[in-house]
Amino acid sequence: MSMVDTINKKRLGKVLSREELEEAFNGYFQGNIPDYQMSSLLMAICLRGMTDQETLDLTDIFIRSGEVLDLSEVDGITVDKHSTGGVGDKTTLIVASIVASLGLKVPKMSGRGLGHTGGTIDKLESIPGFRVNLSREEFIHQLNTIGVAIISQTAHLAPLDKKVYALRDVTGTVESIPLIASSIMSKKIASGADKIVLDVKVGKGALLKTQEEAIEISRLMKKIGHHYQKDVDTMITYMDIPLGTSIGNALEILEVMRILSNEENNYLVALSKALAAKMVQLGLGISIQDASIRVEDSLKSGKAYKKFMELIEAQGGDISGLRVSSHTQDILSTKSGHVIDMDAYRFGKLSLDLGGGRKTKEDPIDPKVGIVLKKKIGDDVKVGDVLCTLYLREDAPFIQEDLTSYYTFQEEVEPPKSVDDSVEIV
Amino acid sequence: MSMVDTINKKRLGKVLSREELEEAFNGYFQGNIPDYQMSSLLMAICLRGMTDQETLDLTDIFIRSGEVLDLSEVDGITVDKHSTGGVGDKTTLIVASIVASLGLKVPKMSGRGLGHTGGTIDKLESIPGFRVNLSREEFIHQLNTIGVAIISQTAHLAPLDKKVYALRDVTGTVESIPLIASSIMSKKIASGADKIVLDVKVGKGALLKTQEEAIEISRLMKKIGHHYQKDVDTMITYMDIPLGTSIGNALEILEVMRILSNEENNYLVALSKALAAKMVQLGLGISIQDASIRVEDSLKSGKAYKKFMELIEAQGGDISGLRVSSHTQDILSTKSGHVIDMDAYRFGKLSLDLGGGRKTKEDPIDPKVGIVLKKKIGDDVKVGDVLCTLYLREDAPFIQEDLTSYYTFQEEVEPPKSVDDSVEIV
Repeated sequence: MSMVDTINKKRLGKVLSREELEEAFNGYFQGNIPDYQMSSLLMAICLRGMTDQETLDLTDIFIRSGEVLDLSEVDGITVDKHSTGGVGDKTTLIVASIVASLGLKVPKMSGRGLGHTGGTIDKLESIPGFRVNLSREEFIHQLNTIGVAIISQTAHLAPLDKKVYALRDVTGTVESIPLIASSIMSKKIASGADKIVLDVKVGKGALLKTQEEAIEISRLMKKIGHHYQKDVDTMITYMDIPLGTSIGNALEILEVMRILSNEENNYLVALSKALAAKMVQLGLGISIQDASIRVEDSLKSGKAYKKFMELIEAQGGDISGLRVSSHTQDILSTKSGHVIDMDAYRFGKLSLDLGGGRKTKEDPIDPKVGIVLKKKIGDDVKVGDVLCTLYLREDAPFIQEDLTSYYTFQEEVEPPKSVDDSVEIV
Repeated sequence: MSMVDTINKKRLGKVLSREELEEAFNGYFQGNIPDYQMSSLLMAICLRGMTDQETLDLTDIFIRSGEVLDLSEVDGITVDKHSTGGVGDKTTLIVASIVASLGLKVPKMSGRGLGHTGGTIDKLESIPGFRVNLSREEFIHQLNTIGVAIISQTAHLAPLDKKVYALRDVTGTVESIPLIASSIMSKKIASGADKIVLDVKVGKGALLKTQEEAIEISRLMKKIGHHYQKDVDTMITYMDIPLGTSIGNALEILEVMRILSNEENNYLVALSKALAAKMVQLGLGISIQDASIRVEDSLKSGKAYKKFMELIEAQGGDISGLRVSSHTQDILSTKSGHVIDMDAYRFGKLSLDLGGGRKTKEDPIDPKVGIVLKKKIGDDVKVGDVLCTLYLREDAPFIQEDLTSYYTFQEEVEPPKSVDDSVEIV
């Protein structure tokens, strides 16, 4: 069947066979199908959908385009997590430390930031000496000794998904539940862990806009996981605010250390505990109540903090060398009122503009810059209060923009935004 | 607005503004928007549709990408026709000769064949010396002297439509009523005629599958025409059989001569008369009954035949030099029964394989090869009857395939396929 016939078939809403999907996607991977045909097929998939069988087939095609990590030499149960990311999202670092401190193995491949969201790998690289590339042997050895390793995603896992994703990003074909599910799950299956917890974000800044979509993608990703004999659980969380109080690489490492030292209590902390508890529940096969108790204990006893330090040391990092900029600027509010919303996207962009992220893949980043939020949703603000502190490049001028507009104020107090019931926290 | 935002907007089913359409399509024309983004937008348009206003805007953008032919120096009323083409479709040559013989001006730009359908320009080029490229002055002079000129479509009319169509052809985005309407109408408006008759083909082998679609595109094309102060009328016709008895370039010129000599009477003849009558009705502003009488008179009196000969001579053709292959092969039926269907697509492909068409734009074609159909729908066939005669390349081997399978037989006599009511013929 020719590619045009395949595109027409999907345009007419018909079901593509495994063979047709292979011809189209493997042909694209091999360079025999041009971008303009693949993007047309992807748009037809966005608008016509795919059956579960098509989604399973596509996931499998993505997985087979590269290696599948063999973690059989790791002693014990491996648990992975995935989150679609967000501004200030440092949950991976918190959760991996907690879960590994409780006897489970956390083999984690993470990405770099692009656009307005940061990446776990960039955050870790703000620690002098931290090695984000380990050999397979080093990776497995570290899992067998300290139980956790966080490395940069290799190009060998689901490389076809990577190629397709790059095209979707520039052709308006990102927002498709079957395409999102097959993309995430192909990477997770190829990463080799036994159990997987997926943080499904929903909200106006997320790929998924409604709770119905989040529930549908959760169902689909669990089904794909079970097809590969993986235990998969999902958590639907609200996305659209900066997570925690810091944005910026070194600043976020410091925030992780404060959280693991029990010095913070906010939505990020609650979310991280809930995610960790899900992973522990799944990994140890215990109730969510028991898992939550163990998570609390790991934090209170300092075991999670200790595990994070072990991780840094094992991968060559020198935490005493971590630095943030000394050139700071307090941003004062020009309004007063009760904060009911914050524009996560604009804060993410600001951090990028300060030098903390990259606009293209090749941009260097400055680990020392960023933003510390002093006022968040639910706070009452008076004119002249410090809304946030910017950590600027040493030679950068002060920001002239009035950042008060990043905040939405309301006189009347509204109930705070709640996460989905399944998260069991607020 | 970025192209990705525009694609996303259409993917979500929203209406694009004139400005957004201009940015996307003019950007594509200028090479600033890559193929893979345009194909994704085109697929979103296929599946989400366009409003009449969007379709009008897109048509206008196509027209403004090139020249609009100025026919103001032509004395009298200019009438153009368009047909989506088909296997053995030689209506343009018949209709133009009839209509010009009745005092109207027929400025016709035609295309070459690609794929399984032939092109009027290829047919004319089978006449030795026939010039398909005339200067603007020659074109207008010929219209003012003999009333008809048929030339190869220039690259200057709606060049953006040409670029977009080439992309649609390879990305499964051909079948969209607004896209088909804007493509056809941009070329027709740019061609400059006062009045336009459109032959809208419907059937399993046509772009439009149902009568509802044909009615919708007719409405839309008339609306576009009226926007440019053009009188537009349409005729919905059934497509899916070879038109007439010959397929192949020189063979089709001979068939046109026989038809204009009143030696044939079949569906093609009826269709051509109906189309010609519509053009005369529109061009002279008379009733369809009066127009039909004039068409019959033109044929019976030999005026239409004479006009065709004038056309050939005016463009340098020497009809005495027209040749068909002397290497022929009769195809005998291996079945008996009543013919209820013929596979136009396979006959078109066969003619192509014999050397009568081109598979790529650069292929040379042999004007002398082709097929003459001896049995058609409605005929009773016995085993051993001649179904058709192939005109092969002089050095080509006989065809071994049993072509009986191109025909569908049925014991019971069914009513013949009828054209739409609006054609007023069967």
